[in-house]
Amino acid sequence: MSLLVVGTVAFDQIQTPFGETDRILGGAATFIGLASSKLEVKTGLVSVIGGDFPQEYLDLLTSKNIDISGIEKIEEGKTFFWSGRYHNDMNSRDTLATELNVLENFQPIVPEGWKKPDVLMLGNLHPLVQKSVLNQLDERPKLVILDTMNFWMDLTWNELMDVLKDVDVLTINDEEARQMSKEYSLVKAAKKILKMGPHTLIIKKGEHGALLFHENNVFFAPALPLEDVFDPTGAGDTFAGGFSGFLAKTQNYSFENMKRAIIYGSALASFTVEQFGTERIAELTDEELVKRLDIFKSLTNFDIELD
Amino acid sequence: MSLLVVGTVAFDQIQTPFGETDRILGGAATFIGLASSKLEVKTGLVSVIGGDFPQEYLDLLTSKNIDISGIEKIEEGKTFFWSGRYHNDMNSRDTLATELNVLENFQPIVPEGWKKPDVLMLGNLHPLVQKSVLNQLDERPKLVILDTMNFWMDLTWNELMDVLKDVDVLTINDEEARQMSKEYSLVKAAKKILKMGPHTLIIKKGEHGALLFHENNVFFAPALPLEDVFDPTGAGDTFAGGFSGFLAKTQNYSFENMKRAIIYGSALASFTVEQFGTERIAELTDEELVKRLDIFKSLTNFDIELD
Repeated sequence: MSLLVVGTVAFDQIQTPFGETDRILGGAATFIGLASSKLEVKTGLVSVIGGDFPQEYLDLLTSKNIDISGIEKIEEGKTFFWSGRYHNDMNSRDTLATELNVLENFQPIVPEGWKKPDVLMLGNLHPLVQKSVLNQLDERPKLVILDTMNFWMDLTWNELMDVLKDVDVLTINDEEARQMSKEYSLVKAAKKILKMGPHTLIIKKGEHGALLFHENNVFFAPALPLEDVFDPTGAGDTFAGGFSGFLAKTQNYSFENMKRAIIYGSALASFTVEQFGTERIAELTDEELVKRLDIFKSLTNFDIELD
Repeated sequence: MSLLVVGTVAFDQIQTPFGETDRILGGAATFIGLASSKLEVKTGLVSVIGGDFPQEYLDLLTSKNIDISGIEKIEEGKTFFWSGRYHNDMNSRDTLATELNVLENFQPIVPEGWKKPDVLMLGNLHPLVQKSVLNQLDERPKLVILDTMNFWMDLTWNELMDVLKDVDVLTINDEEARQMSKEYSLVKAAKKILKMGPHTLIIKKGEHGALLFHENNVFFAPALPLEDVFDPTGAGDTFAGGFSGFLAKTQNYSFENMKRAIIYGSALASFTVEQFGTERIAELTDEELVKRLDIFKSLTNFDIELD
């Protein structure tokens, strides 16, 4: 069981109504890897960092048994940096800064030993970068999952459509699903998108949960109702890491098992938002995760038959 | 098993992106009664109509075994009229007209034979009108459910707080829960509101489903993802009718059974939005309802254990 992840390893600087951070560890691949490693899946990251990236962050990743041999360090470059401020409702945010730095010319290199992963998670990057990772593999993974965003739909539509043909599962948010399909109804949007390549679509709705579409099946996983969302940064990536990690671990790619994978992703994401950045997910215990999975079960499961 | 409903019986005139209606049958008590009667619960309505209210609408209600002896007809008055236009997203609407007419001086009178209902559903009306119905009963119902809205919070806060003390279940939407509690987080809002009288709170989130809070328990019921929402009018009232009707039918007021009641409410509401006004719910067959309950089950239920 192995999961290969390509995505950003970055610095984030975050402002929320609860406080603000200095430059802290962030990036999609970071959150995906931390979530997946929690499920004891052999996880490898493909990414790029600058000479300014602290060794302690790399040590954190390796301490979680994450293979960082695919993280290229460009000594003379600077690490990708994102800064944002969340509004009071925590559902919307302003981007204060995006400094691509070493990400601008990122040419991912899949290390030897990682060319036959069971599951490939293509984090939100230029579609050509995503495609180049697929092309470097010795055999097609059993499952290819791709995350993308409105930015790539606007600027690189044709390239995105091309890589999508090689993808099994697409994860996007509700607004992106609407943009991609030109349909307001998410059910109609899903029908159209499932003709673009992926056989499975996950539409993330933030605090309103996530929808899983596969052929004529739909499954809905709620987000956990929380007293406070402290920092939503990385929640979507944690979700993707839990989802892809669970499938890599169980090697069962059926719709029934994808339901479980989505619940694992939702449960893991519900921890990430409790503290800044990776703080919470990095310290999460197995016991806490098991407890939260139970909470998800009691949150939605019902038996329609009378006692 | 009996359910007494107090609420509006009205004319609605509706515009949606899909078309518009003339004056059609509407009103909260109408939708609540139609939903409840679908569950074969003895249902009685307390309301008021004008001389302009067509006999065929009354005949429709009685054909569903709804007791209309509590609907007062004021021959020289006109029936309550509401008109609205839905926006393209179907989640927001403009009210074009609200003519209170006979509702303005509504003094509900609970008929003899209806003074010991099992369940009382107090539809969205002036809190003093809701209270007067409670005061006319010979004994306290086993369950009292109250619906209200921001309008009454703005204008009749003290009266609302007074009647809430006699209520078991409060149903409001997310914005109303926030207004009522002055908390943005719905979990925090629920904690505060559950100190105002009701032991159970339902927060309706429209297309994002509904949350059920009771002591430290939370249950979440999704709305059914639909290709098209044709007309959302009456969905919330249908939901309330399914919820209260199911509880009156089963006479089991436990949290576990309230979960089922919410699923029945959600399933019934998912029909109402498929056509204008009461068209769909009035024609619904038992077979269709059973099928939809199954869809709700497969939409959210999962088994975390591997096959």
